[in-house]
Amino acid sequence: MNRIQEEILKRGKVLPGNVLKVNSFLNHQLEPSLLNDMALQWYEMFKNEGITKIVTIEASGIALATLVGLAFNVPVVFGKKTFVSNMSNSYITKVYSYTKDQEFNVCIEKEFLKKGENILIIDDFLANGNAILGLIDLVNQAKAYVVGIGVAIEKGFQQGGKLLRGLGYNLQSLAIIDSMDLIENKIKFK
Amino acid sequence: MNRIQEEILKRGKVLPGNVLKVNSFLNHQLEPSLLNDMALQWYEMFKNEGITKIVTIEASGIALATLVGLAFNVPVVFGKKTFVSNMSNSYITKVYSYTKDQEFNVCIEKEFLKKGENILIIDDFLANGNAILGLIDLVNQAKAYVVGIGVAIEKGFQQGGKLLRGLGYNLQSLAIIDSMDLIENKIKFK
Repeated sequence: MNRIQEEILKRGKVLPGNVLKVNSFLNHQLEPSLLNDMALQWYEMFKNEGITKIVTIEASGIALATLVGLAFNVPVVFGKKTFVSNMSNSYITKVYSYTKDQEFNVCIEKEFLKKGENILIIDDFLANGNAILGLIDLVNQAKAYVVGIGVAIEKGFQQGGKLLRGLGYNLQSLAIIDSMDLIENKIKFK
Repeated sequence: MNRIQEEILKRGKVLPGNVLKVNSFLNHQLEPSLLNDMALQWYEMFKNEGITKIVTIEASGIALATLVGLAFNVPVVFGKKTFVSNMSNSYITKVYSYTKDQEFNVCIEKEFLKKGENILIIDDFLANGNAILGLIDLVNQAKAYVVGIGVAIEKGFQQGGKLLRGLGYNLQSLAIIDSMDLIENKIKFK
């Protein structure tokens, strides 16, 4: 068991609707030393892939992506959520959020995603995969390559992981949750 | 001249309305090694102050604050922008954004700001000071202490810096802009 899995068992809270609350260390309060451990794990996995840039989505992916960028010594760019859709200098994609029951645009300025770049996508959560599919779309629009995807917590009982692996992406999740029990607050990993 | 000042001169763009665009390294694309240099500067300035937590605001403060938290080996918590205002488990404050001409709520869950904590506030920009005054309000609601404030870029010709120093806060800005010239894209530091 790695450190993120230990923290999930120790500090994660199962809420109704298959929600896992990990905001004491991952997405409201952040534990930088834990996040840096995770960044170094992805560095070991992807260090020979010629990564030129880290791509993530605001807000809670930024902390992890920054530490991954520091490990690789490459820039980070984060997709911005916006309701404006007529930005000619930006790549734009639509992402539907189940959590918020809302569709929003995610954009990255064209000058920060260049043709031929080798991209590592980083995010905190993977459930249905909508946010990451949106980021992949932005990278594809720029004719850059998604070399790998690093996710902190994958909900293994939802479709995102299966979908992304089925499409041939090298997806590395540090914790894959097999099942969560609301009443006993029990979490099982794959 | 420090590294952030050099990058501002090299890559900053002056836009109409006294806007300084630094999104190639600070708030859309991020340069982790530059940001880490800045974090280590604040660490040197505040390392003897007994800092127990870093507080920032989403989204663009998160990268800097994470690296500062790593340097201090303390947790980071970021204020979330939201339109919901009836969260009894959160401290809430109102912040007016001149850039977006919009008022929004910023909240931090009560369990992540404890009485008596020594807080270092970190943010990327200081202009009118509204965002930082909002964070100070959240810290005060928790009966914690604002021991210091670290800002990457202070617009010295706007009121925020003068206001915060006048209130007695130990504000450390790594670059204070004295004036910006739109036509020649010239930037002068204090």
